[in-house]
Amino acid sequence: MARRGRRPGDADTRQLILEAARSTFAEVGYQRATIRLIASRAGVDPALVHHYFAGKERLFAAAVHFPFPAAEAVEMIFAEGIDQVGERLVRLFFGVWEREESREALLGQLRRAMVTPGEPIPFAEFITSAMLPRAAPRLPGNNQQLRIELAASHLVGVAVLRYVIRLEPVASTPLERLIEELVPRIQPYFTGELR
Amino acid sequence: MARRGRRPGDADTRQLILEAARSTFAEVGYQRATIRLIASRAGVDPALVHHYFAGKERLFAAAVHFPFPAAEAVEMIFAEGIDQVGERLVRLFFGVWEREESREALLGQLRRAMVTPGEPIPFAEFITSAMLPRAAPRLPGNNQQLRIELAASHLVGVAVLRYVIRLEPVASTPLERLIEELVPRIQPYFTGELR
Repeated sequence: MARRGRRPGDADTRQLILEAARSTFAEVGYQRATIRLIASRAGVDPALVHHYFAGKERLFAAAVHFPFPAAEAVEMIFAEGIDQVGERLVRLFFGVWEREESREALLGQLRRAMVTPGEPIPFAEFITSAMLPRAAPRLPGNNQQLRIELAASHLVGVAVLRYVIRLEPVASTPLERLIEELVPRIQPYFTGELR
Repeated sequence: MARRGRRPGDADTRQLILEAARSTFAEVGYQRATIRLIASRAGVDPALVHHYFAGKERLFAAAVHFPFPAAEAVEMIFAEGIDQVGERLVRLFFGVWEREESREALLGQLRRAMVTPGEPIPFAEFITSAMLPRAAPRLPGNNQQLRIELAASHLVGVAVLRYVIRLEPVASTPLERLIEELVPRIQPYFTGELR
């Protein structure tokens, strides 16, 4: 931190930007929330937002307590080759949902979308505009985007049953057990071809 | 209808019972909504509820525009043997979600659950208390209930992406195409054994 020459009060500025980012993403969605708009709402120069967060992906990740920006998340998922993508994705997914802060951010956005149909869902946009375009070209075969979304849909459904509806036995099945069952269903979406 | 000796005004009585059922299920959940409670809220004799709906399952199905009571739905799903259960379930599921009335009932309950955690979700209770106990013993192997819920979770997730978030390309992929992709992922939950 010292190398960036932060003065006392930097923590407040950073916090101010994060709060402006959170409300802006929630109101206008990921795509339309520009760094310029967020900076103006926080009452700071856009350069300061870049200084603290180095771009929108990283700012979004920090604002919603997502542990990695999109580019890093995709790298992590593909780091051990296509045959490990299923397990890597499942582990990243539950890593986010099992952390209370990021789970609350996700539930908050899903709640808004449920109550006001048509509402932008920043997380979903973040995934489609920042993660999918990086991930899709790495898959063999056709219909990569549909295949990724179907894989994701299985995970979303487990999240709804486990964290929202709290349906037993899914809600209290140990995480490792769930991962063990889900990986073999999800991996074929990445390596198998859709008809 | 004539054989049941309906008088003019029967349609209103039936409607009165359905409305009382809808609000009672929504408020106290499937389990705690007794025929007696619904009848008293509708201002009719419980025998009249049985006369029109022949039991709680059928009343619930009518109230939420679900096309079949639980027993019939399970029979339908298993009618062509265990190897067809995946496809039958997927088709029944989308049959419900593609009908506007039942989709709205489902979304309404999911919405309530999202906004007020801990809220009873009559549909989920209906499935766990009326459908799962009938379906689980018909599956070979162990952990039948978990396997059924994991199969269901995939479908729930597709419903969230397609009908709530309206994520493309899942939202506008033709239904038959989706069914074709989902059945091979879901069928193993019924015939394969979990480790």
